[in-house]
Formats: sequence, structure tokens, C-alpha cells
Amino acid sequence: MAKIKVAVLGATGMIGQRFVQLLEDHPYFEIGGLYASERSEGKTLNEVLKVKDVRFQQRTLGVKIEQLDVKAISKRCRAAFSGLPTEVAKDAESSLAAAGVAVFSNAASHRMREDVPLLIPEVNPDHLELVRSQPTFSSGGFIVTNANCSTTGLAVPLQAIYQKFGLKACYVSTYQALSGAGYPGVPSMDILGNVVPFIRGEEEKMEAEIYKMLGTLEDGKVRLADFDMIASCARVPVVDGHLESVVLKLGKEAPAKDVIKTLEEFRPEPQRLKLPLAPIHPIIVRQEENRPQPATDALAGEPERARGMAVSVGRVRESKGYIKLWLLSHNTLRGGAGGSVLNAELAVARKLL
Amino acid sequence: MAKIKVAVLGATGMIGQRFVQLLEDHPYFEIGGLYASERSEGKTLNEVLKVKDVRFQQRTLGVKIEQLDVKAISKRCRAAFSGLPTEVAKDAESSLAAAGVAVFSNAASHRMREDVPLLIPEVNPDHLELVRSQPTFSSGGFIVTNANCSTTGLAVPLQAIYQKFGLKACYVSTYQALSGAGYPGVPSMDILGNVVPFIRGEEEKMEAEIYKMLGTLEDGKVRLADFDMIASCARVPVVDGHLESVVLKLGKEAPAKDVIKTLEEFRPEPQRLKLPLAPIHPIIVRQEENRPQPATDALAGEPERARGMAVSVGRVRESKGYIKLWLLSHNTLRGGAGGSVLNAELAVARKLL
Amino acid sequence: MAKIKVAVLGATGMIGQRFVQLLEDHPYFEIGGLYASERSEGKTLNEVLKVKDVRFQQRTLGVKIEQLDVKAISKRCRAAFSGLPTEVAKDAESSLAAAGVAVFSNAASHRMREDVPLLIPEVNPDHLELVRSQPTFSSGGFIVTNANCSTTGLAVPLQAIYQKFGLKACYVSTYQALSGAGYPGVPSMDILGNVVPFIRGEEEKMEAEIYKMLGTLEDGKVRLADFDMIASCARVPVVDGHLESVVLKLGKEAPAKDVIKTLEEFRPEPQRLKLPLAPIHPIIVRQEENRPQPATDALAGEPERARGMAVSVGRVRESKGYIKLWLLSHNTLRGGAGGSVLNAELAVARKLL
Amino acid sequence: MAKIKVAVLGATGMIGQRFVQLLEDHPYFEIGGLYASERSEGKTLNEVLKVKDVRFQQRTLGVKIEQLDVKAISKRCRAAFSGLPTEVAKDAESSLAAAGVAVFSNAASHRMREDVPLLIPEVNPDHLELVRSQPTFSSGGFIVTNANCSTTGLAVPLQAIYQKFGLKACYVSTYQALSGAGYPGVPSMDILGNVVPFIRGEEEKMEAEIYKMLGTLEDGKVRLADFDMIASCARVPVVDGHLESVVLKLGKEAPAKDVIKTLEEFRPEPQRLKLPLAPIHPIIVRQEENRPQPATDALAGEPERARGMAVSVGRVRESKGYIKLWLLSHNTLRGGAGGSVLNAELAVARKLL
Repeated sequence: MAKIKVAVLGATGMIGQRFVQLLEDHPYFEIGGLYASERSEGKTLNEVLKVKDVRFQQRTLGVKIEQLDVKAISKRCRAAFSGLPTEVAKDAESSLAAAGVAVFSNAASHRMREDVPLLIPEVNPDHLELVRSQPTFSSGGFIVTNANCSTTGLAVPLQAIYQKFGLKACYVSTYQALSGAGYPGVPSMDILGNVVPFIRGEEEKMEAEIYKMLGTLEDGKVRLADFDMIASCARVPVVDGHLESVVLKLGKEAPAKDVIKTLEEFRPEPQRLKLPLAPIHPIIVRQEENRPQPATDALAGEPERARGMAVSVGRVRESKGYIKLWLLSHNTLRGGAGGSVLNAELAVARKLL
Repeated sequence: MAKIKVAVLGATGMIGQRFVQLLEDHPYFEIGGLYASERSEGKTLNEVLKVKDVRFQQRTLGVKIEQLDVKAISKRCRAAFSGLPTEVAKDAESSLAAAGVAVFSNAASHRMREDVPLLIPEVNPDHLELVRSQPTFSSGGFIVTNANCSTTGLAVPLQAIYQKFGLKACYVSTYQALSGAGYPGVPSMDILGNVVPFIRGEEEKMEAEIYKMLGTLEDGKVRLADFDMIASCARVPVVDGHLESVVLKLGKEAPAKDVIKTLEEFRPEPQRLKLPLAPIHPIIVRQEENRPQPATDALAGEPERARGMAVSVGRVRESKGYIKLWLLSHNTLRGGAGGSVLNAELAVARKLL
Repeated sequence: MAKIKVAVLGATGMIGQRFVQLLEDHPYFEIGGLYASERSEGKTLNEVLKVKDVRFQQRTLGVKIEQLDVKAISKRCRAAFSGLPTEVAKDAESSLAAAGVAVFSNAASHRMREDVPLLIPEVNPDHLELVRSQPTFSSGGFIVTNANCSTTGLAVPLQAIYQKFGLKACYVSTYQALSGAGYPGVPSMDILGNVVPFIRGEEEKMEAEIYKMLGTLEDGKVRLADFDMIASCARVPVVDGHLESVVLKLGKEAPAKDVIKTLEEFRPEPQRLKLPLAPIHPIIVRQEENRPQPATDALAGEPERARGMAVSVGRVRESKGYIKLWLLSHNTLRGGAGGSVLNAELAVARKLL
Repeated sequence: MAKIKVAVLGATGMIGQRFVQLLEDHPYFEIGGLYASERSEGKTLNEVLKVKDVRFQQRTLGVKIEQLDVKAISKRCRAAFSGLPTEVAKDAESSLAAAGVAVFSNAASHRMREDVPLLIPEVNPDHLELVRSQPTFSSGGFIVTNANCSTTGLAVPLQAIYQKFGLKACYVSTYQALSGAGYPGVPSMDILGNVVPFIRGEEEKMEAEIYKMLGTLEDGKVRLADFDMIASCARVPVVDGHLESVVLKLGKEAPAKDVIKTLEEFRPEPQRLKLPLAPIHPIIVRQEENRPQPATDALAGEPERARGMAVSVGRVRESKGYIKLWLLSHNTLRGGAGGSVLNAELAVARKLL
């Protein structure tokens, strides 16, 4: 099978460079071009490198950044992965879809649009069908978005639990990594030896997106899920990996061991389809008393290609009729670029690409 | 008025040295001796110094640590402040009380004893009366404990809210500082650029202590408060200051602004009595969108003597019928040594010392 | 004595706010206005606050930032303290001097000008006389600069040693704090759990400035000092306090104990004059095997007003004919705003203000 | 070729676990047993895991730790890799050598013994011959040590320079990682947001070991190198990777570009022999203005197996007749377990195993 040519938009940023990492030697996709704002035009990836723990191939490091040009991209690429900043993403992604390009976006701009799937293949694969109602679909162009990074890590185990036990309420407090703020992002003076209990727009996103993702597709529309979702978000001095403290009031009460079993046995569609970036175990339940931790678990996931794509859950315990647990996911892989690439892999499996 | 001679137990530790700091030039108390385990006997405070941001007076730095000897202490001191490790504290504190010494303890050993007040003067000053039912009381000896550091910061604003609006549930996730683990405490390899979502015994303490503290004294016994208290505790790479994310279901629903007003107008007994360590404002409500933070607010409190004794609250907001807020308190001052000294000040005001 | 009205330039920055801190209730000076670029015009100090560990007085917090206007400043203020960024400082400071204002600057722009003193009162008080040869001097306007922050901490003990033993070579490697880069300064992603072995222009400044400061005034000109000065500079994840590893080849070999004695007995002019910001001991020699450290020693200096103005030196030892030592100084106090205020105090003592 | 059975001593520690990581699927060696003190006897590797960024194979994780027993080891294993603490290593290693086991040690105990090679295959491969003069050699037992972690990173580029240009003096200041102190090692309260300018015994080791390693073998003895080696050592809040600031006075002056060329062209014996752990480029010279950095360069080295075995050098520049440069090496791989395994590989190549 010939590989599908794809563009990476926002290639100078944190998420953009994670896209590049994941697309090097991808079995379905091949990078057709790296695009960013005018400022970086003509520079090589190597000159604008921001993600530090990634080893890019020599040939990739030399690729030149081009200026974002809808016509040029649509001629060269069937699909585009967007790591654009929200304010730029809205128009650029719409234009690309109009020009017949399938856009897999990490930006928030189109997430809550009725006809745009807010997609996590482990959570709501059927929502992908929404693209068929997008006005540009007939030309081959459409937009699929992934969720906010902190919502993604939560949505995977929450869906497993929600399907099995129902949910009355979910109270979550986050411990979010610095890479989630992009680059330069958080000034070091603000966060070294400190915690900042505020991330602009984050709580609102978490409280809105989860209802859409856990919603069901009925008559071509998403019927929102219904429970109390209460989020509080903070930034901590950690490079990668969003940790979340979760308290759940289940629809029907259940002991912690039943919840653990449900999480461990969760095998949704991407795992059944064996999509390249789907980790064998989408949820890894830790038995240790003090896990998951960003330093040890951010890169959880097998095989090698799927490192950083598993969600780690630990300390599942009950208290006064509630279930408490901690979860951790890699915010720029599972909750960022990796999510969008997995979305595109599902689109390939469903013959949309 | 002649000053009351007091002993500091566990003077080589984090809490012990905070006791020393607070007792230098205290208007009611005077250090009669510094005591610790055999290992440190004969060393000066200067040689065993662990708290780094404190400036001790030259004369104090030269004071020699003595071995803990109940008889010697009871001869010399009317009261003792205990920063002993839990395993040592139980027997040592009991023996001292039996020997007629008033013990103000930071250790957990006696906290849940029916006749021991788990005291925060801003929260439950009347509980101090419990000491009268202790078997050693007639000899002048008794035990008063302060609460666990993370419970203390929570209890102050919670009491203000509970009294006014009632409470159905309190969901709290903590972001706790390193000094809470004592010294050497948390190995740097475990916490640098990381978060550890586990602190042994901490969630259990928070979930148990709060009911006793917010309970009412009826017929000489504490009648426990009744609401859902659900705690999840984590350690973050911060030196001082426990931050807590709090979600409340009030007894009767109220808008955020009423909660803010209630917190700002809270003027409990220690403030009315103008106790030396009582901060003018026991709760400081921040208006900024991103406060309180450990780096800026751990040492909140006026006047100078009461620095670190105020609890900072911020981002009080409502969502779907819940109140969300963040709070911060200094764990070894407000939640440690400062709490015990304030307890002793209340005991003086109530003529128990 | 009526207080001298002074302007603070660059009041929204790290250094500017340290100026404000040091000028609150200063015995000689009184703040006449806070000035910054257009962007901050009309905001209060409170709204632009960047220095987090400082407690400003309520009245100061409400002062409004004004736009930098030479005419207005010269009418209102006799002197100005400049924390302006280098690119702005050059012209602004020249204009102010031309308008008759005495400028005490933390910027690098004029440091190497032949007729501008690069002044540390403990090191080269006589250099202040250079201002008399500035073209604007007759109108009362002149410029005095302090040294680069890392050079300052070095220059004080180095001068004590140089005067006594002479110097053949000084090899220094720095461990510099984040506040030295201003705000937002270093992105957290770049420095958390990391060290960056490069600070633009820093090594060049250290290698140039030290010769001028340790030089002697001959016929109204500075004759540069002459030895091998070799500097390597790195940024470390520390908030305040530049630590430096120093190796010295003395002019005449001497044992470590003689060097220690020389450092301890150093009592230069500001101490003899008892200038308000001059610490009683300009150099504090630590005896511990592991000091000085930023966490414990950045704020060294007595009395209270002079906290952060002393240079701490430790581990003075000899090896193969060299003297090795570590030194630490507060980069935005001793090496920043405090240095300039002390310069102005010397100017008052010498009747130049 | 049948693999050689090897023991790992001190398998519960930081270095021990790096040995295990490097020996999984090693082409020459096979783990015959994991050994540690009594305390850990019977626990699995998984239960005592300290190195967090390493992925061990499932089968290895289940291996049980045995108590160190010379007889049992000598029966089962031809060689042993020792990550024992210095105080235990001395006798244990001697006994093993006496029992016919070839010991490759990371401990300091035997490093300066006249008949023990202090070996870095890139630096002084010929010193391996010293083992022939050890009293136990006839029985097959001998001891080979690697150097102190901070000395190792320095020795590789220094040897390249020394051989080409000679050396009059080397002034080095270190920025050392936490993993160098083992586990639990440095308390977090001591190092978060701080630098500690003292590591016990480290400067003495660096100043002594470098002369032996750069020395030449003459008549079966090492003739020490001769130049001024001056070291100052500090601990910084970094997990892995020792950074060093180096100033050199060459034997014959040379421009920076010649030094760079010499470093880049350095191809010593392990690279010529293509030993498994020998990185293709033993020294990687970075062109960027701000490298090497621990976060980006600690794991330098190709191929995959040799990650963490290359020494990165950057900012090679000249000033006043000196050469300045920064270097970085992974302290528990290149400067620890990896060094010893490479030593053993050289021993195989030279038919000593």
C-alpha cells in the first residue's frame, strides 16, 4: 500500500514536533511537508527543535519549514496534522477542509462544533461518522479533533467505568506538566519549587468536552452524557505527564476490585483493529501503593511505537461509597499528537482516507 | 508576668526547630531546654540545624541539645512542645503529662483519644475543655494536640463555611510540600520533576480528624460532624506550603460571593483574644486569578510574628451547584509548630497554664 | 535632613522592583515616581508585580506606573535608579544625565565608558570621582553604573585578596540564578532538572569589567588591573543567588588561613562610613564544609536592611599552589538594585548628591 | 560463542541496576545471579527497583536477589560486576579475585592500587595489562576498576587533547547529578532550587585519578601524568548527567578549531575493536551555542546499545591563551556501570576472559 502524504502544521511547536516524531517511519503515513508561521520559514527542523527527549532521524532534522499555504498543501497532501495555536487554527483548518484535505487537529477551535467528532478511538470511535455531515465532506475534506490533553487521559478509563457502572459524579483535580503550555510557556521563575492553581480555560474545557466524548451518537448527533463533572486544574513543575486525582460516584455502587477488573479488561476498537499507535493495554492498572508517577509512567505503553499512549491508573480504592483513583497520561503524546495520529489511523481503517 | 518555662521535644527535627523559632522572644513562654534522642545529645542547635530559611538568634544557636528525660523536664518546665516522631511521642507525652507537664503536641499519637482535644483555636476552642477529663489533669499535666498539617489548613475555612451553610460533602486533593515529610524525608531522586500521589496515612488522617475538629462538644464529649469527607494526597516538589484543591457541596446552596464574604468576615476567638500568634486575618481571600501559590503565600499573615499563620484561599467559584476553591497554608508553621504554640496561648488565656 | 527625591526606571522588572523594595523608608531617599515603558502606563505596582518574596507596603503597591519622560523626571527628581533593559537604557540614561539627573544604573550600556565609574563602594570607592569628568557634571547630571551581577559577587572578595597578595590568575565558573535573566526570562522547559552552560554576553562582561573595577585611578583615569581572568557561565534551577567556583593563583603564594583572615578583616569604606545598605560584614566566611548555598546564604547580611548585601565565601582551601573557594551573592540585591542604591549612598556621603 | 556467566554485586543500588540493564541481551555476557546485602535477600529486582527511566525485561524483573556469597558466586560465574558501596567492596572484591573471579568494579576501594588498572578503554587500554601482576591472576581472578564518574567524563576528551597538545593545567568545576549520590542519596529539602558546593571526597578523587589514567605504562608500572589538575565539585538538581566546566592551559598553544578537530577525530581502541558498548563517536562535539546540557545530552551515543556512553563536548573556545570548554557524560552509564562493562568487553577482546 502506498503511504498517504500528510502535512504537519505548526511544526515548530511542542505538539508539531511530536507529530513529526510519530510520523517518522509510520506504516500508513509519510510526511509531505512541515509548515509553520512566516517567522520560521526556511529554517530546518533542527534549528527550531523544542522537544528535547526525542531522537529525530538525520534526514528529518534537515527538512525545511515552509510557510503555511493552503493551496500548496492541498496539492501535495491528502491529510494534515495540526498543532497550530488555537487563534490560527480556526480559519486555517476550515480552509484546508474546504480544499479537500482531511484535518486531524489538536487545536480547540472546532472541538465543540456539532458536526466535528471530538474523537478518542478507545472512547467514541463511532463519533467519527460525524464527518459525513460536514459541508466539505463530498470533496474529501473534513475536520477531526482530539480532546484537550487533561480530558483525554481521564476519558479513557472513565468510559470503561461509565459503560459498566454508570456515573453520578466525577470530581477531578489535575497536576499538569509544563509541556502542556507549549514553548516558551511557563516562565521558570513562576513554577520552580511552586504550584500554580490556574490554567486558563482548562477547567471549562474539561467540564464541557467530557460530556460530548462520553455521549452517544443518535440520529447523526451526539447526545451528551449526563453526570456532575467538576474539574480543578493546576500546573506543577514536571516536564511531561498529566497526573489526575479522581473521585467517582458510580451509577451503581461497586467495590474497587470490580472497577480494577473493568479497567484491566477494557479492549476497545483500536486494540481490536491493532492500529499502529494503539497500545496493547490502553489502560495499565498499577498495583504499587505510590503509582502512577510522571517520572516513571509518562511513557507507558507497548510496543515501542506506542510508548506514551497508554493511560496508567493506580491506587483504585473505595471510601464512603465513592471510588478514588489516580491516573496519568502523556500530555503531548496520548493527549496531543499521538491522539490525532491514532484518530487518522482509525479513519484509514474506516476507509475515510 | 513571669514567662512560663517550656521544653521543646524533638528539637533536632523540622517541627522542633520551628518551635524554637516561634519561642524566641515569645511574650508568654521561655525556652527551658531543647530535648531530642540520645544521638544528638550535647550538640548545639547550630550543629543539627535543618530549617534553612529561619534566622535564629546567636544565643539560641549555641543552646545544647539534652537527652529527653521526663523527670528533669518536669522539674524545669511547666509545659512542653512536642515535635517528636509518632512512635516515640506516645509514651513520652503520656509520661510527661503524668509528671504534671502540659504537653502541646504535633504528633498524631493521641489525636483521636476521646479526652484529648484535637485543637485549632480558630476552629474549636471549646474542645480545650476536654483536658479537664484527662486522668492527669489534677496534677496539672495534660495533652493537647494539633491536627495533621493538611487537615489544619482545610479546617479553618471549612469551619467558617460549615457554620454558615452546612456541608454535605468535601472533596479535597492535596499538593503537599516536602518539609511535611521531615528530614531527610523524601529522596531528591523521587521527587525532582515529579509528583508522588501517595503519603502514608495522610488520607486516613484527613478523613478522620476533620469530623472530630468540626464536631460539637456535648456533655463533655465531642459529637462528630457528619458529611462526606473524601481526601486524596500527593507530594509535590515544593519546600513549604500545602496547597489543596477543594470541592464543596454545601448544606444549603449559596453563590461564591456569599462564601467569600463569610470567609473574609471570619473572626474567631484567637483573633478576638489577640493571641500573639493569631494572625489579624485568619483567612486571606485572594482576588487574583492564579493564587494562592506556595511561593507567594506560604508565609501569609500579619503582624510579623504571625507570618505563616494565615490560611490563603483563592479562586472561590461555583460550578453546577458546587463551590470550588483552592487553599494554602504553611505546613510547619500553621499546620505544625505554630498551631501548637497558638494552642498553648489559648490555654494561657483560659487559665490552664 | 530632607530626603532626596528619586525616580525608579524600569519599575515593572525584576531589578526595578528590588529598587522599590530598598527605597521604601530609606533614610536618604524617597520615591518620586515609578517609570516604565508605555505598555504598563497607568497600572499599579501591584498589577505588575514580579518579585515574589518581597513584602511591599500597601501605599507602595498602589503607586501608578508612569511613562518614562525625561523632562517630567528631571523636574521632580534629583536622582534616578535605572533597571531599564540595556537597549533602552543607553539613550534614556544619557538624556537624564543631560537634564541634570544623577543616574545610578544597573544596565550595561555605559559601564565601560572611560568617564563612567563602574562602582562597588567596597571595591573602588575612589572611582566615583570619574563623574567629575562627565560633560554633564556641571549641570548636576551624571551616570554611575554598578557591575554585572556575577562580577559583583566576585569583585568584593577578589579585591580584598588582590590588595593583599596580588593576583596572577582567576578562573571562575558560575552557577547563576534564574532571576538574573529577568522576567519572563528562562522558560521552565529549558531549565527544570537541567543546567544551561551559556548566558549570552556574561563571560565577556566578567572578563572585561573586573579589570576596570580592580584598576587604580591614576590622573583621573582608570589603569586596568592585570591578571588572567577566565570565566565560564551557566544557568542553574535556583531562584536567587549566584554561586561561583573560584580558583586563584596569587601574586605571592599564601596558605588558605591567611586568605581567610584577609577576607574576614576586610572593612572598606562603606562599612567605615556606615552607609545604610552596607552590611556590617561585607564578606562572611563560612566554616561549614558545604556552604555557601543559595538556599541558605542568598540573603546573608546584617542588619535587617542590608539582608542580601553580604557576599558569603566558603571552602577556602589550597591545592598545588592555588587557592580554591566558593562564593555566593544575591544577584538582584548585592549584584543588582542594592549595588546601585549603595552607590548612591556613597555619592551622598561624598556630597555629590 | 557461549556467553560468559557474570554476577552483579550490589544489584539493589543505582549502579547495580544499570549493570542489569546493560547486561540484558549482551552479546558476550549473561547474568548468572544478582547479589546484595542480607536485607534484600529473596526480594525480586522489581521490588527493589531504583532506576526509574529504564525498562527491564519481564523475566529480569522477577529474578531474586541473593545474598553475596563468594563461594557460590565463584562456582557459578567467571566474572562479577561490582556496584557495591566502597566500605563493603574492598574485602568482597579481594575475596572474589582470590576465588578466581574477574572483578570489574565501580567502587573506589582498589582504584589507586599499583597493580590494579584504573581503566577507560578509550583512554588507557594498555593499563589492562597490569592485572597480570596481581597475585591472584594465575587462578584467573583479578580486579579492574573504572574511574570516578566525574573523572571519567573528563578523562576521555582530556586524553585526546593531552596526546596531541600536551597539558600544563586543567581547571574543572563540576555540576553533578543526583544519581551520583546513589539512593536515597541527597534529601530533596537540601537540593530543590539549590546547589550544594561540596561532594565528599570527590575533588580528591578527581585530582588523583586523572594522573594515573593519563599516565603511561612503563616497565609494568604506571608513570603518572604531570600537570596542574584543580577540581571543584558541586551537586545540582539534575537527575542524570554530570556537566563540567573546563579550562585548559595546553602544552603548546593551539586555536579552538584545532582542539575541536582533535576531539572529533579521536578514534581509540574500543571503537577500532567495535566493542558492543563502544559508541561510534566516543566524543560528540556540539556546535550549538548552549550545549551540552544534561536534559538533552546525557543519553548521547550510537548505536542504541551505546546510548549514554558518548561524552558530549561543547563551546570549545579560546581566551587569553587558554582553551575553555564544557563537557557532559552520563554518570551512571559512561561514568558507572557502562564503563565497567566496556572494561570487561576489552578484557574479552584481549583474551583475559
